Amino acid sequence: MTEPTGNREIHTIRWENNTAILIDQTLLPATYREIPIRTVEEMWEAIRALRVRGAPAIGIATAYGVCLGLQGQTYTDSRAVIERVNEVADYLATCRPTAVNLFWALDRMRRTAQAHASLSPTDLCARLLEEAHAILREDNETCRAIGRFGGELIQDGMTVLTHCNAGGLATACYGTALAPLFSAHKFGKRFQVYADETRPLLQGARLTTWELKQHGIPVTLICDNMAAHCMKIGRIQLVIVGADRIASNGDTANKIGTYGVALAAQAHKIPFYIAAPRSTIDRSIPSGNEIPIEERDPREVVSFGGISIAPDGIRVYNPAFDVTPAELIAGIITEVGILRPPYKESIQWAFSRDPA
Amino acid sequence: MTEPTGNREIHTIRWENNTAILIDQTLLPATYREIPIRTVEEMWEAIRALRVRGAPAIGIATAYGVCLGLQGQTYTDSRAVIERVNEVADYLATCRPTAVNLFWALDRMRRTAQAHASLSPTDLCARLLEEAHAILREDNETCRAIGRFGGELIQDGMTVLTHCNAGGLATACYGTALAPLFSAHKFGKRFQVYADETRPLLQGARLTTWELKQHGIPVTLICDNMAAHCMKIGRIQLVIVGADRIASNGDTANKIGTYGVALAAQAHKIPFYIAAPRSTIDRSIPSGNEIPIEERDPREVVSFGGISIAPDGIRVYNPAFDVTPAELIAGIITEVGILRPPYKESIQWAFSRDPA
Repeated sequence: MTEPTGNREIHTIRWENNTAILIDQTLLPATYREIPIRTVEEMWEAIRALRVRGAPAIGIATAYGVCLGLQGQTYTDSRAVIERVNEVADYLATCRPTAVNLFWALDRMRRTAQAHASLSPTDLCARLLEEAHAILREDNETCRAIGRFGGELIQDGMTVLTHCNAGGLATACYGTALAPLFSAHKFGKRFQVYADETRPLLQGARLTTWELKQHGIPVTLICDNMAAHCMKIGRIQLVIVGADRIASNGDTANKIGTYGVALAAQAHKIPFYIAAPRSTIDRSIPSGNEIPIEERDPREVVSFGGISIAPDGIRVYNPAFDVTPAELIAGIITEVGILRPPYKESIQWAFSRDPA
Repeated sequence: MTEPTGNREIHTIRWENNTAILIDQTLLPATYREIPIRTVEEMWEAIRALRVRGAPAIGIATAYGVCLGLQGQTYTDSRAVIERVNEVADYLATCRPTAVNLFWALDRMRRTAQAHASLSPTDLCARLLEEAHAILREDNETCRAIGRFGGELIQDGMTVLTHCNAGGLATACYGTALAPLFSAHKFGKRFQVYADETRPLLQGARLTTWELKQHGIPVTLICDNMAAHCMKIGRIQLVIVGADRIASNGDTANKIGTYGVALAAQAHKIPFYIAAPRSTIDRSIPSGNEIPIEERDPREVVSFGGISIAPDGIRVYNPAFDVTPAELIAGIITEVGILRPPYKESIQWAFSRDPA
């Protein structure tokens, strides 16, 4: 399949002939390559190595990962299928710790298996694949709803800052933080985007600029450390970023650097929004203090395309996420509307609603 | 000359056989190479291309640049020498706009030429070389005094964050922001340093970690966007950075990203200090609004060691500096003591003093 151009949509993950097909995001923007994922071990590696990344996309990928894990075996009864689902889910749960959508999708697959224990093994496997498809389909609907609600925040002449990539590539197709931009653009609003490059893995430079360019939205790339200066000189009017896990008080874990952006936005009275589906909200934890922060390989920081950028053996700290406290967040754009502080209450409200 | 190791000092610039010898900082840390600079044009290029960088080092380099510009010509009288000094100084003034030390050093060379108009051309040229040597020698004394005053701020068990490189490589030898660390280390204090990598040109990753390692001071490298998170989780107790130009109200231009660090430090009540010689203070401007901010080539952001990290043709904004307002600065560590707010008064006091 060739690279999408113009206003064409991205299909981050799709299912074809018993295989999950992913865009290998580690190769973008230089190379657009779709890779077939045929086993659960391959899916584990693809998530760990960030070939597929972004909380909602990780959720979808793990659901398909469960289906891949069911293939190639013979089951005497549905209990054997359920056992295998649990085994595969336990394994997939080890690939990344922060994004809650991973655990949410695995739980949903486990619950689906339990709820259909009366089916034959073949029918149960088919039902589980259907559930993975449903997660993908719902993600599309969710992202479009986030786009509609968030699009209202964007006005002609604005410049919107975003950090990392919470675009189509972080979901099945339409994005979370970028969905409001896609929606506003479709409605003919004229605005610009500044994209933080997002060290160390440069998802902003590599993925966000690429996606916005596909959609024809004007985008300017900056280094992460330029965002505060851009705000100071009046270049930014709105910030929208994604989320990897939101606690029940609204504290939000997102890509490392988000917290610094939120502090700078507060200092300049620029509204700072999170865009995320309800599946990113973890109501089991009271605050951001309970969110585990993944630390990744120092080599992500000290080497670049095989070139070393620091003296050999230098110590590195490489947290992949940080937590932005709820008080810095103007609103959380979800598929049921924009949640406002106090988040404890608005999050409860969000879960009492059907999708918009 | 071989790479200094252990507690050996760096000699960023030295003068030998009518030639300025620079460490080519664009090659560090992979390669330690000293390059001979034989003409004023070569010096212009070396400063522009950041082979030598850091406000105090730029000042010294331009003073030697004036001397290089005087060589290879025959002068009928001292007026011809003075004319040539002015011509060369005008040319060198165009190489970088933000660091005031460049203009300060050029003014000093112009004034020295004027003040010794009665000398023969040969003697005047020798006098000007002596002045360049004096600038270098004074820089050493200044940096050591900054080290003594700033070293008092460092206590056992602290972790100090710094941004970019304001070490020996940014001066003749001893550094500004790193001088307090070198001094405290010499006095046996036990502390650690976190170094921001400092995109786009990675002076923190390449130069600061290298220098601290030479001195045996424990250092951890982070990406710029991790600093706020490190503060939040209690890893940082003090921030010291350098300066490229300080306005008479204390507003300070320094490497891009400094302002974001200062905002994060304020949010966490972590004292944020500037370390700089008085030659970095520009009393001719009332505030940071009057400091010109150099914008550099987009290629610094979008390519890395020849590898492109963003889609072709993407728009980039690449300011090299930002301005931190005086109200975020706990103190300015100078060679005559630590200046405290209100800076308008303490800066006046600093200029009324002889060096400590």
